[in-house]
Amino acid sequence: VARLVRSTATEEVVGASGGFGGLFAPDLASLQEPVLVASADGVGTKLEVARRAGDLSTVGRDLVNHCVNDVLVQGARPLFFLDYVGTGVLDPERLVELISGVAAGCRENGCTLLGGETAEMPGFYREGDYELVGFIVGLADRPELLGPERVRSGDRLVGLPSAGLHTNGYSLARQVVFDRLRLGIDDPLPGVGSSVREALLAPHLSYLRCLEPLLGRPSLHALAHVTGGGLTDNLPRALPEGLGAMVEVGSWAVPPIFHLIQEQGEVSDEEMLGVFNQGIGMVLVVDAAALAEVVGELRRRGEKPVEIGWVEEGQRRVRYDRSREGG
Amino acid sequence: VARLVRSTATEEVVGASGGFGGLFAPDLASLQEPVLVASADGVGTKLEVARRAGDLSTVGRDLVNHCVNDVLVQGARPLFFLDYVGTGVLDPERLVELISGVAAGCRENGCTLLGGETAEMPGFYREGDYELVGFIVGLADRPELLGPERVRSGDRLVGLPSAGLHTNGYSLARQVVFDRLRLGIDDPLPGVGSSVREALLAPHLSYLRCLEPLLGRPSLHALAHVTGGGLTDNLPRALPEGLGAMVEVGSWAVPPIFHLIQEQGEVSDEEMLGVFNQGIGMVLVVDAAALAEVVGELRRRGEKPVEIGWVEEGQRRVRYDRSREGG
Repeated sequence: VARLVRSTATEEVVGASGGFGGLFAPDLASLQEPVLVASADGVGTKLEVARRAGDLSTVGRDLVNHCVNDVLVQGARPLFFLDYVGTGVLDPERLVELISGVAAGCRENGCTLLGGETAEMPGFYREGDYELVGFIVGLADRPELLGPERVRSGDRLVGLPSAGLHTNGYSLARQVVFDRLRLGIDDPLPGVGSSVREALLAPHLSYLRCLEPLLGRPSLHALAHVTGGGLTDNLPRALPEGLGAMVEVGSWAVPPIFHLIQEQGEVSDEEMLGVFNQGIGMVLVVDAAALAEVVGELRRRGEKPVEIGWVEEGQRRVRYDRSREGG
Repeated sequence: VARLVRSTATEEVVGASGGFGGLFAPDLASLQEPVLVASADGVGTKLEVARRAGDLSTVGRDLVNHCVNDVLVQGARPLFFLDYVGTGVLDPERLVELISGVAAGCRENGCTLLGGETAEMPGFYREGDYELVGFIVGLADRPELLGPERVRSGDRLVGLPSAGLHTNGYSLARQVVFDRLRLGIDDPLPGVGSSVREALLAPHLSYLRCLEPLLGRPSLHALAHVTGGGLTDNLPRALPEGLGAMVEVGSWAVPPIFHLIQEQGEVSDEEMLGVFNQGIGMVLVVDAAALAEVVGELRRRGEKPVEIGWVEEGQRRVRYDRSREGG
């Protein structure tokens, strides 16, 4: 574990690990007013899928990427990450598996794994269960913070594809896949073209590498990370009072896994959009005049941005236009 | 919950909560080289006692104080705290109880509750169980960092009293109190002068208010927070290679709760010192020449410091002198 932790260290780490708390001296030289941005998160019941798959190596990356996105939407780059692992009786091999995913996620995002805690709580956790919680601290310059106060009526919404469910909607997905369809972890998912394991453990994407070049641009007004609550609950977090979002359903292709869950689970369109990301993991709110430039730049870097709607006068909620659906 | 969170806000908080991550602009004006100090922790199976007592209002304070002490030992003052609550099915009243303790702890330590995450994971947690994890970020000036590199042979060890078990040794304590003695939560603890509830839920003390005036003094070399592993495991974390600690057992009065656990649990002296704090919650490593001054100053502020030993040539471990025991 110590080796995994060291593999994530940047020049800003102070001293060796093993003390009571991790030390980090951020490089503040180029900032007008440094703002720390912090977030805490868990992996939710995706952990249950990992346990069923006998593979704890992927959920750490999910967690780091989720946390990175949560500070990115404020305009912050990640500085460091800490993890908490709770379990009944610790199996050192499973711990290494978990932390290896965390360390890989940290390396991929240039984020230091500064510390963490492992707690053995016999009787509190079921045998083989592992809780995994992450905390991240990022840094932004105050004049470059993103958010609702920068958003204007007429701004365009640009969606970036997700890699599946990311870390949300797993209670419903598990119910459909394991209880209703009675599929095993290595069975093929009908109509999806991958196994249950591949589809349900596909990692939560980090949008840092893709969006970092756009941070600080005046034309990027806000970002929305599409997590629990889907577009319906997360887009309004990027909107100020007096503005709403119009999203054109059908402007992007919803991946087959979501269709399968919807059909087999008999879930309404509305609920799907309020639980799952439906194939859009991150939304950029950009100045309409800069739309072509932003989309072009993302495409040149190999991303697949989709224009999914716009901002208009309204009540800080999402309205869905279904006229393009199926078209 | 929103009201509880606001009750902890300082002037350094940026904007309203409700975004994706909490924003904090630290006041760096007086620092030569700002160093962030971060730590993650849980409450362990003290949660099980809280559940049994039907009172989740105290564990939040335990957690904050524990985390505050963990960054304090590096010489850092706390900036902000984030919590994670995991449970099966959320009871809003229990959540408020938990967070009220967290918010109280934050207020007492002048620390902002900057954010948090509540996760409902049905089936993963037992009914009525709540996991509580905390994450803290503190700030220190690099020239004033405390730690092993400042410690010298001949330094004196000054202990500050704990308020009981704090948050460590609960698996053993619960076994003795609930399984062996078969006591109920409101039964008196024989020879202790308080009920099981009072003794086992007594809050983990924060040493911030008491030690803050000493931060930055050249005579304060290091601190050791006595948590899991007792003096035996925690004192060496304040020692450099080539130095060890000599602790005089009997130089302080071990509180009755520890005697009860030792007798009824048939625990060896050695194990007691390696599991419990034995009445010493924090150890100061101070320059011998400044001992009288530091002790006098702590006493004038109403603290009860005890000289418990010294630093000497050795192998980064604690030796115990039992010649004063019982004296």
